[in-house]
Amino acid sequence: MAPPEETTAAHAAAEAAAIEENLAAKTTGDQPISTIVIVVAMQTEALPLVAKFELSEDLDRSVFPKGVPWVRYHGTYKGLHINLVWPGKDAVLGVDSVGTVSASLLTYASIQAFKPDLIINAGTAGGFQAKGASIIDVYLASDVAFHDRRIPIPVIFDLYGIGARRTFSTPNLVKQLGIKVGKLSTGDSLDMCPQDESSITANDATLKDMEGAAVAYVADLLSVPTILIKAVTDIVDGPKPTAEEFMENVVAVSAALHYAVTEVVDFISGKSLSDL
Amino acid sequence: MAPPEETTAAHAAAEAAAIEENLAAKTTGDQPISTIVIVVAMQTEALPLVAKFELSEDLDRSVFPKGVPWVRYHGTYKGLHINLVWPGKDAVLGVDSVGTVSASLLTYASIQAFKPDLIINAGTAGGFQAKGASIIDVYLASDVAFHDRRIPIPVIFDLYGIGARRTFSTPNLVKQLGIKVGKLSTGDSLDMCPQDESSITANDATLKDMEGAAVAYVADLLSVPTILIKAVTDIVDGPKPTAEEFMENVVAVSAALHYAVTEVVDFISGKSLSDL
Repeated sequence: MAPPEETTAAHAAAEAAAIEENLAAKTTGDQPISTIVIVVAMQTEALPLVAKFELSEDLDRSVFPKGVPWVRYHGTYKGLHINLVWPGKDAVLGVDSVGTVSASLLTYASIQAFKPDLIINAGTAGGFQAKGASIIDVYLASDVAFHDRRIPIPVIFDLYGIGARRTFSTPNLVKQLGIKVGKLSTGDSLDMCPQDESSITANDATLKDMEGAAVAYVADLLSVPTILIKAVTDIVDGPKPTAEEFMENVVAVSAALHYAVTEVVDFISGKSLSDL
Repeated sequence: MAPPEETTAAHAAAEAAAIEENLAAKTTGDQPISTIVIVVAMQTEALPLVAKFELSEDLDRSVFPKGVPWVRYHGTYKGLHINLVWPGKDAVLGVDSVGTVSASLLTYASIQAFKPDLIINAGTAGGFQAKGASIIDVYLASDVAFHDRRIPIPVIFDLYGIGARRTFSTPNLVKQLGIKVGKLSTGDSLDMCPQDESSITANDATLKDMEGAAVAYVADLLSVPTILIKAVTDIVDGPKPTAEEFMENVVAVSAALHYAVTEVVDFISGKSLSDL
C-alpha cells in the first residue's frame, strides 16, 4: 500500500532538509557523522541489517530512475541517517545484481542522492587460508585492487587496470573492535582462473570479492570516505569448490556480517570521521 | 577562458528546453531522432568525431559531479543534438579511464543528463580472423555479452554474469551502409586468458572490447536503444601481441571509425527510431 501523498511529500521535504543540513556541516572531518550509505550486493546480506536498524523500504523508489532494480532501505538509528542500498534482482533473470558494474552504478547514484559522510560496503568474500583467513572471519579491508583488469601496456595503463587504493583509515575502530584487517581483491567472477590467482597474489590479498574495489573507486572519485567490511564464506585456497562452499555458508556468514556491521555502526554513532 | 555568465545561463536554458521538448516528443518511435549520446572510451577515438561534428567542449563540466574526469563535447549537426562523452583521464595516472566501470557510470550519468533517444557506443576492438575480421574492418554489434564474469551457479547466476543481450535492431542502416555485423564480447582486460577465450567462443563473438556490454546493460536498464560501432585494431587470434598491434593501429583505425560513425550519424539525421 502506498502512503498518502501528503505524508510522502512531507517526508521528502524532511529528507531534503536533512541532506542540506548534512552538506552544510560537512566542512571539516570534526563534525559528528550524520548520514551513511551501506552498500550490499545480495538480499541475504541486506535483510538482517534492515531488521537490526529497523529500516523501511523506500517503496515508491522515486530516488532512483525508473527501470533500475535498485532497492533502498532507510531510517534513523542511534542518531545516524542510514541508507542501506542493494542493487536488487535482475529484472529478467531474478538473481541479485552482483558485480562491479551494478555496485558502481548504485554507489554513484546513492552518493548523488544522499550525500553521505561515509560509505560502508558490507558483504561476503572468499578468504585465503594461506593469509590466515577462516570461514566466518570478518575483516576490515585496508586496501582494495582489481584482479581481472589486465591491461599490459606498461607502466601506467596496467596500474590503472589494477586500480589499487587504500581505504579510509580507521585505527580507533580497528583497535576498539579487535577486527581483523586485510587487503581485498575484486573481480567479476565467483571462481578464480590462474591469471586471477596471479593478480590476487600480486595484490597481496587476504580476501576476494566481486564489488569492493568498484565501490571504493566510485567513492574515491566523489571524495566520500569508504569502509569495507567483508565476512568469509569460502576458502579460496581450500579443497571445496567455491560455489558449493559459498552456498553452504552464506546464511551463517551473513549473520556474522550483520553482527560486525552493527558493531561498526554503534562505534560510528556520535563520532566524527577523524575519531574513527 | 570561460564564456560570460549570461551566455552560459541562456545556453543552459536553451539546452533544458531542448531536453524537455525531446522528452515530450518521445511518445512513439516515429518521431525524428533528436538527441543522441555518443560514448567513446579513449581520447584518440573522441577527437576526430569532435572535429567532424564541430562539437564544443563543455568546459565548466557542471553537467557531471565534481571530481569525475568525464568530458562532454556537444553541438548540433544536421539537426541532431549530439553529446559526445568520454570518461577522461584518470586523475592520478593520467591514462584514459577505459573499462566497464567507467563506461557504465558515464552512460548512466549521460542518460540522466541528456535523455537521449539513442546511444551510440563507438570504439576500437579486437577482431577474430576465424570469424572473418580484418584490421580496420568496422562492425555494427548485433549482440553483446561479457566474457570475464564467470559465476558458476547454474542456471541463472551464470546467465546473469554472461549478460547476453541483443542491441537495437537497425536493418535499414545495415543495408544502406553495407556495414559488417557481428557479435561483441566485453571484458576488462586488454589481453585474453584461456577462460576468457572459452567464454568468447561460447558468446560466438567476432569482436572483443572493454566497454560495449556494460554500455548496453545500462542503456537497457534505462530503456534507451543502443547501437555499437566497433573498428578492429588487432587480430586476437593472430600472431602479434595485442598491446603491440593495438598501439600500431589505433590511430589509423580511429580514422576508419570516425568515417563509419559519420556515415551512421548522417543516416540517422531526420529519421525516427523505427526507420533505422
